[in-house]
Amino acid sequence: MAETAVNEMNITVAQIVAATGGTLAARVDSAMPVRTIASLADAEATDISWVDSKKWLTAAEVSKAAIIIGAPGVLGSDHPKALLVKDTQAAVANVLELFAPPADQPDVGIHPSAAVDETAQVAASARIGAHVRIGPRARVGEDAFIHAGVSIGAETQIGDACELFGGVVVYERCTVGARVRIHANAVIGADGFGYIYREGQHRKLKHIGTVVIEDDVEIGANTTIDRAKVGETRVGRGTKIDNLVMVAHNVQIGPACIVVGHVGLSGSVRLGAGCVLGGHVGVADGVYLADGTQVSAMSGVMTDVEEPGSRLFGAPAQDHNAAKRDLLRVRRLPKALDRISELEKKVAELEGAANDRETG
Amino acid sequence: MAETAVNEMNITVAQIVAATGGTLAARVDSAMPVRTIASLADAEATDISWVDSKKWLTAAEVSKAAIIIGAPGVLGSDHPKALLVKDTQAAVANVLELFAPPADQPDVGIHPSAAVDETAQVAASARIGAHVRIGPRARVGEDAFIHAGVSIGAETQIGDACELFGGVVVYERCTVGARVRIHANAVIGADGFGYIYREGQHRKLKHIGTVVIEDDVEIGANTTIDRAKVGETRVGRGTKIDNLVMVAHNVQIGPACIVVGHVGLSGSVRLGAGCVLGGHVGVADGVYLADGTQVSAMSGVMTDVEEPGSRLFGAPAQDHNAAKRDLLRVRRLPKALDRISELEKKVAELEGAANDRETG
Amino acid sequence: MAETAVNEMNITVAQIVAATGGTLAARVDSAMPVRTIASLADAEATDISWVDSKKWLTAAEVSKAAIIIGAPGVLGSDHPKALLVKDTQAAVANVLELFAPPADQPDVGIHPSAAVDETAQVAASARIGAHVRIGPRARVGEDAFIHAGVSIGAETQIGDACELFGGVVVYERCTVGARVRIHANAVIGADGFGYIYREGQHRKLKHIGTVVIEDDVEIGANTTIDRAKVGETRVGRGTKIDNLVMVAHNVQIGPACIVVGHVGLSGSVRLGAGCVLGGHVGVADGVYLADGTQVSAMSGVMTDVEEPGSRLFGAPAQDHNAAKRDLLRVRRLPKALDRISELEKKVAELEGAANDRETG
Repeated sequence: MAETAVNEMNITVAQIVAATGGTLAARVDSAMPVRTIASLADAEATDISWVDSKKWLTAAEVSKAAIIIGAPGVLGSDHPKALLVKDTQAAVANVLELFAPPADQPDVGIHPSAAVDETAQVAASARIGAHVRIGPRARVGEDAFIHAGVSIGAETQIGDACELFGGVVVYERCTVGARVRIHANAVIGADGFGYIYREGQHRKLKHIGTVVIEDDVEIGANTTIDRAKVGETRVGRGTKIDNLVMVAHNVQIGPACIVVGHVGLSGSVRLGAGCVLGGHVGVADGVYLADGTQVSAMSGVMTDVEEPGSRLFGAPAQDHNAAKRDLLRVRRLPKALDRISELEKKVAELEGAANDRETG
Repeated sequence: MAETAVNEMNITVAQIVAATGGTLAARVDSAMPVRTIASLADAEATDISWVDSKKWLTAAEVSKAAIIIGAPGVLGSDHPKALLVKDTQAAVANVLELFAPPADQPDVGIHPSAAVDETAQVAASARIGAHVRIGPRARVGEDAFIHAGVSIGAETQIGDACELFGGVVVYERCTVGARVRIHANAVIGADGFGYIYREGQHRKLKHIGTVVIEDDVEIGANTTIDRAKVGETRVGRGTKIDNLVMVAHNVQIGPACIVVGHVGLSGSVRLGAGCVLGGHVGVADGVYLADGTQVSAMSGVMTDVEEPGSRLFGAPAQDHNAAKRDLLRVRRLPKALDRISELEKKVAELEGAANDRETG
Repeated sequence: MAETAVNEMNITVAQIVAATGGTLAARVDSAMPVRTIASLADAEATDISWVDSKKWLTAAEVSKAAIIIGAPGVLGSDHPKALLVKDTQAAVANVLELFAPPADQPDVGIHPSAAVDETAQVAASARIGAHVRIGPRARVGEDAFIHAGVSIGAETQIGDACELFGGVVVYERCTVGARVRIHANAVIGADGFGYIYREGQHRKLKHIGTVVIEDDVEIGANTTIDRAKVGETRVGRGTKIDNLVMVAHNVQIGPACIVVGHVGLSGSVRLGAGCVLGGHVGVADGVYLADGTQVSAMSGVMTDVEEPGSRLFGAPAQDHNAAKRDLLRVRRLPKALDRISELEKKVAELEGAANDRETG
């Protein structure tokens, strides 16, 4: 394994300009080596940085960065440090890839300490790290990276170019598509949490289903995705799941969703395509969220969301605007109570006056 | 290890009828092999499914399933696909066990890559997988399954017929009863989170206590159960804990509780028997929940619950019905504010009229 | 490895008195061996216990403990079982250390099953357990304890006297200071959760930054601390993080903070010194909490907190007292609604009377 320190890469301004497809306004030599990409505050005079909003323009002025990536509409087309691009975020993504140091990966082949069942099929180009366990009839695809201490259950299939980081456990009979990345100590395919209560005891329901992770999914560290009772738990193509997320048995997550840390999806929850769930969100058993539903952090969704593109907030979650109104109302309460008191006083006076007239 | 694909089991209708103790109304040959048990929607013509509520009767009508398990009161006693049973859920549990494929388990004995201390006692019938570590004077009972990469600390005892899945860590001096299942990457016996703040620093309190898991407990993937400061953290017999749950030092969980994903129990919390805590619930330090307390998902319990069978909701949690009333009240607020404005207008008019009379 | 059972230590009353620096009022023989330290309820006649509040005095009276640690102002200076100290918590901390049994630690040196890259530097006094993996050019300091199944990435540095428990994964190029304890299955340095949405897909942003854990930090089991996009994610000196906490990319945590279980810190969150975050707290992207900010459990912080020592509560979080007032207001609502109804009735009567006068 050969690795190079960040500042030994000798990436030049010209390479960066090419990678971004941008126009260099900065008065710098195209052959100048750039040390790295850094935030405006951290950048040294050897570095490149970026600005994606006018609110950072002051920070940009005092930044030591040699070059600043930005859109002409934000940075101005004649900024003396500008590398002008149409899509700042995409340009930054390109530059990050340029500066990414060589990854820490197992060597091609099977580490001598790995325990690979003789009936397992491991592609010749796969990299199987130290202390990995691969069960009977499991399959690992071409160019897969299986880091130290991973355990792959019997008959489980790991697709081409997957990367499973240290300590990941995939139970038996699961299917992981191509180019899936699963971060360290995540668990795929543990039993769903299903019991029936009979004669004073919780009787376990055998979970004979499985888990299917489609292509291009990324799963965060210490996340858990349980196997189905029958059928499958499924994570759709290109969906990205953060750390410490809980996906229960028989959940169906559509493609291109974003599921942030500590989200809990209860049994048989269904998410459409492109849903976005903020941190700590909970979704109750069997609830359906239509395509493009967005749920704010800390919310609890108790009922189906049929309208695509809905925005929800609160516990229990309701329409985002209605929830905000409720919050404002509560904060208007003290004034309302004052108004009631004032009314009571006035009505008492009016009543007193009326009585005076009647009895007067 | 011999394994058979689901559809190679050749389980017949007769075997299923026997397993459920039900009565077959469906016009099918008792010798017919059934492929698997599946949901109504997923079932093929070779499969069995089930209905446990009349709300699924429409789905049952269009299901391709050959046989549908259900109670006569739900399905009707002459349904052409019915396998009539008294307790549908229990019948389904039996059928799931019938169709459960052979599990992915280590072979009997100790895998050559395992590191078992010479003073540890491992029962002859136990199965110790690859890369397992068992510490000094630890004990592993008969018929235990210890999967790849598990670490069992010094003097820890693992009871008969336990199953510890990949990557589980049990620290030293813990006690795990019989038939306990601990899912992958769960951690038992890490230090409790206890410090005292002195001279600008958090000084660690040594946690010299332990953890006791009673018989028939199941613990989910990536759950953590901390050791006691002194004495023991205890999980009662038959309690079931989901994934990513946090059980702090000195917590006492009674028997037959249900603790759902992402629950956090703070130090010295005590749960009676049969409590049910929904997802993301938090319980504050030292709080006591009486037998049978039920706490809805996303709630935070700050004070003791003395009344058995209480139902709680909200953060801070209160009686379930009171919490619901509070929610409704907030949603009635805009109308109340309108009513106050209306009153103010009328009172102003009345005051004007009264003034007119006085000054008129 | 030599270990001794708790009750074989023969720690005497005299040793305990010396360790606490207290004054023995109890009529016990200084040479008497004490079995262990236990809670008031659990203590046997051979044990020592403690009282740190008058609310436990009744429990102290019925406790079987031979000796009870406490302050004169709580316990009374002539209590027949008292070991009188100025700082009860600190005295208990000392006694816990006295009774702490020998820890379960790997032997000095490298376990034969460990996979240590030939370019890694492991100090001679370090203890590397079974099935550990240490990557190229990584460094492990003097007196470090690296338990079974830990994985240390390429170029990562682990400081002197660190303890990494079973299954911990530290990705490449991270820096862990001295005396840091990381509990089992925690993950340091996984990719931050950063994507840009282009052409219907989430494009991954390479995370080329790193993680720095300063000296004397403790990190709980199954906690995850992600690497920075650029620059570093940093945890300040002496900060203590509980189990199942999520620290996202580029978060900066100051020194001496307390971060309780299930907390989620979103990308680029900054905590000052000495902040305390309760269980399940979430903090939104980029939010800043000033020194000494305290956030109650289950709260969600959406906006910066500029005032040092602020106390927050609620989701969204606001000033603790304001949040409590809001709660009380909601609970005063039914009465307010009654008052409005009463007013409406009276105003109607007044209007009726006024009409009578006009039309009468």
